[in-house]
Amino acid sequence: MKTIHIGILGFGVVGTGVATLLTRKKQLLESRTGARLNLKTIADIDTQTNRGIDLGSTALVSDAMTVLTDPDIDIIVELIGGETVARKFICQALENKKHVVTANKALLAGWGNDLVKTARNNQVDLAFEASCGGCMPIIKTLRESLVANDITSMSAILNGTCNYILTRISREGCSFEEALKKAQELGFAEAEPSLDIDGHDTAHKLAILNALSHGMEINLKDIHVEGIRHITPTDIAFAKSFGYTIKLLAIGKIHGNHVEARVHPTMIDNANPLSHVDHSMNAIAIDADATGRTMLYGHGAGMMPTASAVLSDIADIARNIISGTKRRVPILGYPEDNIRQIPVLSMKELMTRYYLRFEAQDHPGVLSRISGILGENQISIKSVHQKGRKTNGKVPVVMITHTAREEWVQTALSRISATDSVVGNPMVIRIEEEVA
Amino acid sequence: MKTIHIGILGFGVVGTGVATLLTRKKQLLESRTGARLNLKTIADIDTQTNRGIDLGSTALVSDAMTVLTDPDIDIIVELIGGETVARKFICQALENKKHVVTANKALLAGWGNDLVKTARNNQVDLAFEASCGGCMPIIKTLRESLVANDITSMSAILNGTCNYILTRISREGCSFEEALKKAQELGFAEAEPSLDIDGHDTAHKLAILNALSHGMEINLKDIHVEGIRHITPTDIAFAKSFGYTIKLLAIGKIHGNHVEARVHPTMIDNANPLSHVDHSMNAIAIDADATGRTMLYGHGAGMMPTASAVLSDIADIARNIISGTKRRVPILGYPEDNIRQIPVLSMKELMTRYYLRFEAQDHPGVLSRISGILGENQISIKSVHQKGRKTNGKVPVVMITHTAREEWVQTALSRISATDSVVGNPMVIRIEEEVA
Repeated sequence: MKTIHIGILGFGVVGTGVATLLTRKKQLLESRTGARLNLKTIADIDTQTNRGIDLGSTALVSDAMTVLTDPDIDIIVELIGGETVARKFICQALENKKHVVTANKALLAGWGNDLVKTARNNQVDLAFEASCGGCMPIIKTLRESLVANDITSMSAILNGTCNYILTRISREGCSFEEALKKAQELGFAEAEPSLDIDGHDTAHKLAILNALSHGMEINLKDIHVEGIRHITPTDIAFAKSFGYTIKLLAIGKIHGNHVEARVHPTMIDNANPLSHVDHSMNAIAIDADATGRTMLYGHGAGMMPTASAVLSDIADIARNIISGTKRRVPILGYPEDNIRQIPVLSMKELMTRYYLRFEAQDHPGVLSRISGILGENQISIKSVHQKGRKTNGKVPVVMITHTAREEWVQTALSRISATDSVVGNPMVIRIEEEVA
Repeated sequence: MKTIHIGILGFGVVGTGVATLLTRKKQLLESRTGARLNLKTIADIDTQTNRGIDLGSTALVSDAMTVLTDPDIDIIVELIGGETVARKFICQALENKKHVVTANKALLAGWGNDLVKTARNNQVDLAFEASCGGCMPIIKTLRESLVANDITSMSAILNGTCNYILTRISREGCSFEEALKKAQELGFAEAEPSLDIDGHDTAHKLAILNALSHGMEINLKDIHVEGIRHITPTDIAFAKSFGYTIKLLAIGKIHGNHVEARVHPTMIDNANPLSHVDHSMNAIAIDADATGRTMLYGHGAGMMPTASAVLSDIADIARNIISGTKRRVPILGYPEDNIRQIPVLSMKELMTRYYLRFEAQDHPGVLSRISGILGENQISIKSVHQKGRKTNGKVPVVMITHTAREEWVQTALSRISATDSVVGNPMVIRIEEEVA
């Protein structure tokens, strides 16, 4: 039986999970792949902390070069995170003709196109199933299963922290701050939560998934990103009364010659299966021309779910090695020469439906003034809702629009904010129609 | 660019779908796989019917031997169905060193172990993503993505006809017969619906999925199978009042040294994501030790979803061919030598909870008599419900049990049926607890 040597860079939570699976599932992995997967070396600056795992003959070293330059090692698993050291090490590993497995979505979203080129130049593989959606096999599904499909639309819940917080607000009617505090206490949110709750982590994943869905270069910078800090229990209560749920969605759609790429809180109909995805769970709904709607659901993060995805990449590469092949499936699902640049649709041009909430003065004529400005901007109102008590002479007024152009909506809202009919900025939440 | 020649056996609905994708998606498939996928020949006894597709240079012949013996052809796609002709042709194709792709679950469930051996002896691939769950990538997920997991439990909705009928009864309160008739009118059920509604089609799929989940031989004959003919609107209404939904589930669980393998109508909690899978949609929930719960959701049947799954197999084999490899992933997920026989747990030994509905005589002492017999058989009652009007002196009495042994439940029910307290046979629906 052939032995395949593996090195891990980064012995944190996921690194410990991967080492645990490689150790504890040694026999299962041998039985399934027909190869001996030997974890030869782990490199981490911290070689002292006890991770509660018996490393056996695996070396724990402080110098990444020990792994990067070891001629025995076939596969290097990067689990350091961040974009500086990790990038340097991955480039070096690829240049040393090592196959690389990583879970680093921020790095891939920012530097993925370059890394794909480096892997190509060195004729090695770069695998990243764990970068998006944790243990859900979304990368494999896009690269291999949906191969005969044109993907028209993807919408996904990709951040467990945000989904946990929104679920908590929805169930308990608490504020965002209270829900965040609870999430931090329970380990569902970081002490510094901005990467998650401001939508950036979701955007990183969308950049990768859009590339794989459409055969396009990874493009992070043109993704429109909004987080969930401003979502209030009032909005969630209104959503419920309409049969809607608010989720932070990553949305990627083909729109003529452009692709939509946006991350923002979204109201979805309760007939949409994503509306039932609660707590810290993740899910991805894909609409494609042959399959229709498919959906994956699972743990989007956590030590063992993420480690499971890393192991599926390791096993894939191991199966390549013992089959005497490599780079069997193109890294981004399409051979590098066939990858296009597809421009991202400007948010101004987005056509969708809107939930608008105004803190309106309780005066005669206010409703007519707001709806007048909307009408002048060609925004047609589907329904108007006024609920809840007057506070300091103001009442919440909610309007649901028909499909309208984002640019017109923003123009109208600026004009409405400038009047004395409303206080503060209106709340805007886009509504995603269920295709059904 | 290498050309890979494909032959199709069976030009029915799915055959037409596969031919359509191979024709219409020629460029996409070339762009993704780096190979030219040429549909050289289709064989079907009916060469006359117009399938509404321009075959171009593809030959349509009436003799399968033209495909089976063509030295050019690399991949043969069997879409005839049934277990006699299809089996003969697949064996011949494998013996002629052709890779085979099939959607034929009945054949695989009944003869899969032999076919796997034939494929091995001839060193070719046998692929069957389309056999279970339509376009959901369940075969790939089990064979490749969950490679480092021990799968503890799988529960799945695998038959769109049954799910459509149950959804319809649930939404409209109609009878099974009315819902079946509607399903037949709309094309969701066959004129001869027994294979679907009596649970056999679901059992075929469970036999395949249990094998892939646990590295065991395909074992159809030991699966316990019940269909949905006997489900009434009364049971569905009771289920709703408990926060439950009734679904026809395929259940496969590891239970000590045995595997559970059963297909029957099941009450599931509305917190279980499977409870929201409605109409003709399919879904599979998998509990595994590293990933926790994951779920796939999608169209389990239909021309294009099934064709999409067939194409993913064709692309996989094409990628093998141009990579100069074959049999890269073992057919059943484990190399043939590592596949075990795992005995199926006898239904008598099943431990689960039960919904029991009796048509009880409206006499004093009846409830005490029923619950007395249950108690003597060590079945402990969690709750008793009596709802609905008395008809001809009889009232429906529903009992929900705590976890009990199937054998004891059956013994108790025989004894209760033999008394004059109840009329007819009691309704028994097993309850599946959400693991959460």
